[in-house]
Amino acid sequence: MLIVMNHEATDEQIEAVVKKIRDHGLDVNVSRGVERTIIGAVGEERKLEPEMFDPMPGVDYSMHIVKPYKIVAREWHKADTVIDIKGVKLGGPQIQVIGGPCSVETQEQMDLSAQFVAEAGCRLMRGGAFKPRTSPYAFQGKGVEGLDMFRRAADKFRLPIVTELMDVRMLDTFLEYGVDVIQIGTRNMQNFDLLKEVGRISTPVILKRGMSATISEWLMAAEYIAAGGNHNIIFCERGIRTFETAYRNVLDVTAIPMLKKETHLPVIIDPSHAGGKAWMVPALSRAAVAAGADGLLIEMHPNPCEAWCDADQALSPAELKNLMATLRGVATAIGRSA
Amino acid sequence: MLIVMNHEATDEQIEAVVKKIRDHGLDVNVSRGVERTIIGAVGEERKLEPEMFDPMPGVDYSMHIVKPYKIVAREWHKADTVIDIKGVKLGGPQIQVIGGPCSVETQEQMDLSAQFVAEAGCRLMRGGAFKPRTSPYAFQGKGVEGLDMFRRAADKFRLPIVTELMDVRMLDTFLEYGVDVIQIGTRNMQNFDLLKEVGRISTPVILKRGMSATISEWLMAAEYIAAGGNHNIIFCERGIRTFETAYRNVLDVTAIPMLKKETHLPVIIDPSHAGGKAWMVPALSRAAVAAGADGLLIEMHPNPCEAWCDADQALSPAELKNLMATLRGVATAIGRSA
Amino acid sequence: MLIVMNHEATDEQIEAVVKKIRDHGLDVNVSRGVERTIIGAVGEERKLEPEMFDPMPGVDYSMHIVKPYKIVAREWHKADTVIDIKGVKLGGPQIQVIGGPCSVETQEQMDLSAQFVAEAGCRLMRGGAFKPRTSPYAFQGKGVEGLDMFRRAADKFRLPIVTELMDVRMLDTFLEYGVDVIQIGTRNMQNFDLLKEVGRISTPVILKRGMSATISEWLMAAEYIAAGGNHNIIFCERGIRTFETAYRNVLDVTAIPMLKKETHLPVIIDPSHAGGKAWMVPALSRAAVAAGADGLLIEMHPNPCEAWCDADQALSPAELKNLMATLRGVATAIGRSA
Amino acid sequence: MLIVMNHEATDEQIEAVVKKIRDHGLDVNVSRGVERTIIGAVGEERKLEPEMFDPMPGVDYSMHIVKPYKIVAREWHKADTVIDIKGVKLGGPQIQVIGGPCSVETQEQMDLSAQFVAEAGCRLMRGGAFKPRTSPYAFQGKGVEGLDMFRRAADKFRLPIVTELMDVRMLDTFLEYGVDVIQIGTRNMQNFDLLKEVGRISTPVILKRGMSATISEWLMAAEYIAAGGNHNIIFCERGIRTFETAYRNVLDVTAIPMLKKETHLPVIIDPSHAGGKAWMVPALSRAAVAAGADGLLIEMHPNPCEAWCDADQALSPAELKNLMATLRGVATAIGRSA
Repeated sequence: MLIVMNHEATDEQIEAVVKKIRDHGLDVNVSRGVERTIIGAVGEERKLEPEMFDPMPGVDYSMHIVKPYKIVAREWHKADTVIDIKGVKLGGPQIQVIGGPCSVETQEQMDLSAQFVAEAGCRLMRGGAFKPRTSPYAFQGKGVEGLDMFRRAADKFRLPIVTELMDVRMLDTFLEYGVDVIQIGTRNMQNFDLLKEVGRISTPVILKRGMSATISEWLMAAEYIAAGGNHNIIFCERGIRTFETAYRNVLDVTAIPMLKKETHLPVIIDPSHAGGKAWMVPALSRAAVAAGADGLLIEMHPNPCEAWCDADQALSPAELKNLMATLRGVATAIGRSA
Repeated sequence: MLIVMNHEATDEQIEAVVKKIRDHGLDVNVSRGVERTIIGAVGEERKLEPEMFDPMPGVDYSMHIVKPYKIVAREWHKADTVIDIKGVKLGGPQIQVIGGPCSVETQEQMDLSAQFVAEAGCRLMRGGAFKPRTSPYAFQGKGVEGLDMFRRAADKFRLPIVTELMDVRMLDTFLEYGVDVIQIGTRNMQNFDLLKEVGRISTPVILKRGMSATISEWLMAAEYIAAGGNHNIIFCERGIRTFETAYRNVLDVTAIPMLKKETHLPVIIDPSHAGGKAWMVPALSRAAVAAGADGLLIEMHPNPCEAWCDADQALSPAELKNLMATLRGVATAIGRSA
Repeated sequence: MLIVMNHEATDEQIEAVVKKIRDHGLDVNVSRGVERTIIGAVGEERKLEPEMFDPMPGVDYSMHIVKPYKIVAREWHKADTVIDIKGVKLGGPQIQVIGGPCSVETQEQMDLSAQFVAEAGCRLMRGGAFKPRTSPYAFQGKGVEGLDMFRRAADKFRLPIVTELMDVRMLDTFLEYGVDVIQIGTRNMQNFDLLKEVGRISTPVILKRGMSATISEWLMAAEYIAAGGNHNIIFCERGIRTFETAYRNVLDVTAIPMLKKETHLPVIIDPSHAGGKAWMVPALSRAAVAAGADGLLIEMHPNPCEAWCDADQALSPAELKNLMATLRGVATAIGRSA
Repeated sequence: MLIVMNHEATDEQIEAVVKKIRDHGLDVNVSRGVERTIIGAVGEERKLEPEMFDPMPGVDYSMHIVKPYKIVAREWHKADTVIDIKGVKLGGPQIQVIGGPCSVETQEQMDLSAQFVAEAGCRLMRGGAFKPRTSPYAFQGKGVEGLDMFRRAADKFRLPIVTELMDVRMLDTFLEYGVDVIQIGTRNMQNFDLLKEVGRISTPVILKRGMSATISEWLMAAEYIAAGGNHNIIFCERGIRTFETAYRNVLDVTAIPMLKKETHLPVIIDPSHAGGKAWMVPALSRAAVAAGADGLLIEMHPNPCEAWCDADQALSPAELKNLMATLRGVATAIGRSA
């Protein structure tokens, strides 16, 4: 923690800051510069917060020097974490594509989806039983019935299933149905009570980035889960909110190398929600893999035009198959497989 | 709903769109222009979504013409809604200032806070028993014990209490303690299960704007509450996330006239979280009142430097008192009282 | 300048940084903490840049401690600067409203505008002869002929004139026509050659904030002008670009107290461009004055519906008159006049 | 152009809008819906602007239906435009990497740079003689002397040169030195006078995206150049400004497929300025190529630690060579070469 005094700070004001740091059990380093005196707190600085010093007389501003996250940080855990999902390894040399429809609609739609997903070469399947919809009047998902349809369809093709948990009261049901990967959606990235609950179990969690969450906030949200004991966390970038209106979100591809540097946990990309249009998905998927993503979350539908939600962003079975072929080429070019 | 065809759309493609609209029971208006054919769906267009048409061949883009919200819209409810909180009227000519500490710490701190809040002339009190914190290692609030302290302190001065609900499982407890206004925080603006639950009761709800929520998303979040039957909704702008790093958030003062035009419900401002520094609060508070806000949510502390959270943004009792005096002057200048 | 080493930095790496600082003639303070060693450069740190240290082995990151601006900073110039524009004082207790049309159209339109502006009680007039338009096919302004019309109209009512300079080659013409205040538009805030040129003269300059310029970049743009010798600089906030689409820009009212703290120069607001709609202008104007703005730049037109540009954001003469009356009330409430 | 009336619009108000459209020589289509009447202007709608209708009584809002750009639009020019730069083809199957230092420093530095750029396999060279710097106190470039050094160094290796033009008064000098590609920087994307001037010549122009320019504004800025007669325009995405502070900008990879759809002109990426750090450049470069970029603008330096500007983002000669090898692999995977 550093406290930067303003250039007119008096000795008494400097002393008061020094005393406050010492009262918290840390040592102090004072550097008197030409324009500013800077006071450094030496020791376990995570005990201190800038807000403890900013309102003190003579203080210009203060800031942390060390990162606020620990368990998820690569700084303290050098090796890549590889998460094993019923034998499918995420975070290693092989890139995993998780395909499936936006929402569970009917048993037939799920059966067909599972078949096409498996045929395209995907090793994991996605599908939403509980849907976060902007409008209360829109289709809200099939609920528990949908979980059941999903489980049946995926089991036929031995595909582990990924589905979103919105309500903390549904966690037990998710465990009953043996959901293989629990997805925490964009709007719940800082739903701290939900994070604490999934921190208590060991099921892998895909933590989607909040619409305008910083990398630091996102890592701290993961730290909530990790602090509870669940270290099986997968980051999923799904486009951020910016000023641009020509597409739904901006896929933040820069987040990939940054996360790979800051954390040892796997990073995947959702190109379907990022661009919001099916025709953009191949370009964004290739970019994500080329930038180092460990996996992709891709929406497909046996018949996109008839999808009950996000019809404009689902790939057709044929498009998914073609995409998988191209991704293998890109993966090879960077020394990985897909 | 309008569907704009691209300039090479064939008659068959236009026919397919027309048919899809008719299949949903709406009428059609086709306008063949020089560069584009535009197809209008005439009828209850809320049944349709752009995503139903965007993937069809020949379609350039499509869009809603009417607003997606109904109950909260001023279009269908001209008069201002005034919410009665134990006799304190919010949304009428009198501006209401809700003062209190960021978090409940001790009984003594709450007793002192309540006294100073009442003395300054505020008619409602705020305080957090459950705190949404970015870090899992930070103070998370006193919980139910805090609710109890808050209730006792406020009752002495007959101040209705405002406090944040984060976890849907805590709603019954909130009702037991007679929380007068339930606050839904920024990070939960689109926690749809929580919105549905507070929609089932009649306690007034302060719905804070999501960090980067659009006005339309915010109105739709309120529509979730309203659709459940609870029309006692108060919008609270608390600063939005932008590129600027010189202050925590940007207080979106433009949202005030826009909301007053779009909805009949009251609009208040939280200048403390917007700026993030106590010294900015007076300027932002005056701006909010001048722009037409119906109330303010202001953090104060009997001894700001010792506050357990957000110490740098709390006003001292003296500062709160001074601010109330200035606000009365500004309110008078625009024909209101404070 | 502080250089934060990563937690595995070796003594040799620390030594290399220390040497580089000393080579530039500054002293060094080394603080060895538990997780990090921090190296402080003591002396005239503006000679150094983070980019000089960031690529060095063992460095985590580095940053400036002092602000990069000097002449415009209140830190070194406590008193408010009041700019005298032909006897009209901007930056003192009296708030100045600069009224006028978006663009110069005809002599008659300018004569009427000047009359209405003066009658409403404004003491300065605005009008664009050269217009920055997004489309090359839109009306680009009347040019020099427009300057002439503006000068004639304003002189009848002894109103000093404010107009935008886009092209550096036009500066001499502006001086010939005796433009009283030169406006540098949003899109030119970092047109450094233009800033250098207006830095060489003494005519007051209104420096509009770039669409997404940070406070720091804006102050540095002013420093460009000031470094050339022209200290008559007026900051003008005109709305920033955000994710919100319900209005053109978000008026950044938080910038007002922040700028008043950081600089001694006057700060004005352009509520017309911020909101983009005439009906929002009164609310935004009142907010700006209440937050401490020294002036306003307001678009009006003798007949808004017929304006050649930005017709939807111009006030009518009657609306301008009403607004001026309200602003006087708000100004009085905060101890100023208008 | 569509004009959406509010639901209480009277027949007189609808008539007034219809009349205004007809007065401009366009036809009218009126669609009376359940909640809204929508008026369509049929004909050359680029003559009309929403601001002409928005202030009229009874109008809710109005909007363009067709895109405002024409010459640069793929809608009217299906085939990809390939720009020939002294025999190097940009926009075709071969991806072009433009390498070179941030700024021209010395003849020796430029000679070495040119040699390393050529050895790495780049076919074009970049380098700044005039530098847009945030601070007036920072190194502003070597100016004309720098142009001369650049020309000499590049000629030895027959590399066409790319350099930034900031001041319109320097254009003749650029032509004298035979600059092969003129770069318009981020801060000048809407410097309309500069755009008009480069529109009058035939030298290819790299038009960088403004820091927070929308795709539409960017295309319109290109339309300014094209409208003057110069159709040799190359779009360069260089990262956009968002709320994220972990990296300088967010590389907007979604802009690549979007631009390739909207315009026939080439699109390149500047990964150096996007991320702001050399270690991010390889990942971002691969992503850009995988997403369909036609070229890259990459900063390198014979000795990055000693660079006079942006030292932290320049690749070393060895890093550039390695990157070129990987890019060839990615290009092959998507059916192109590099």
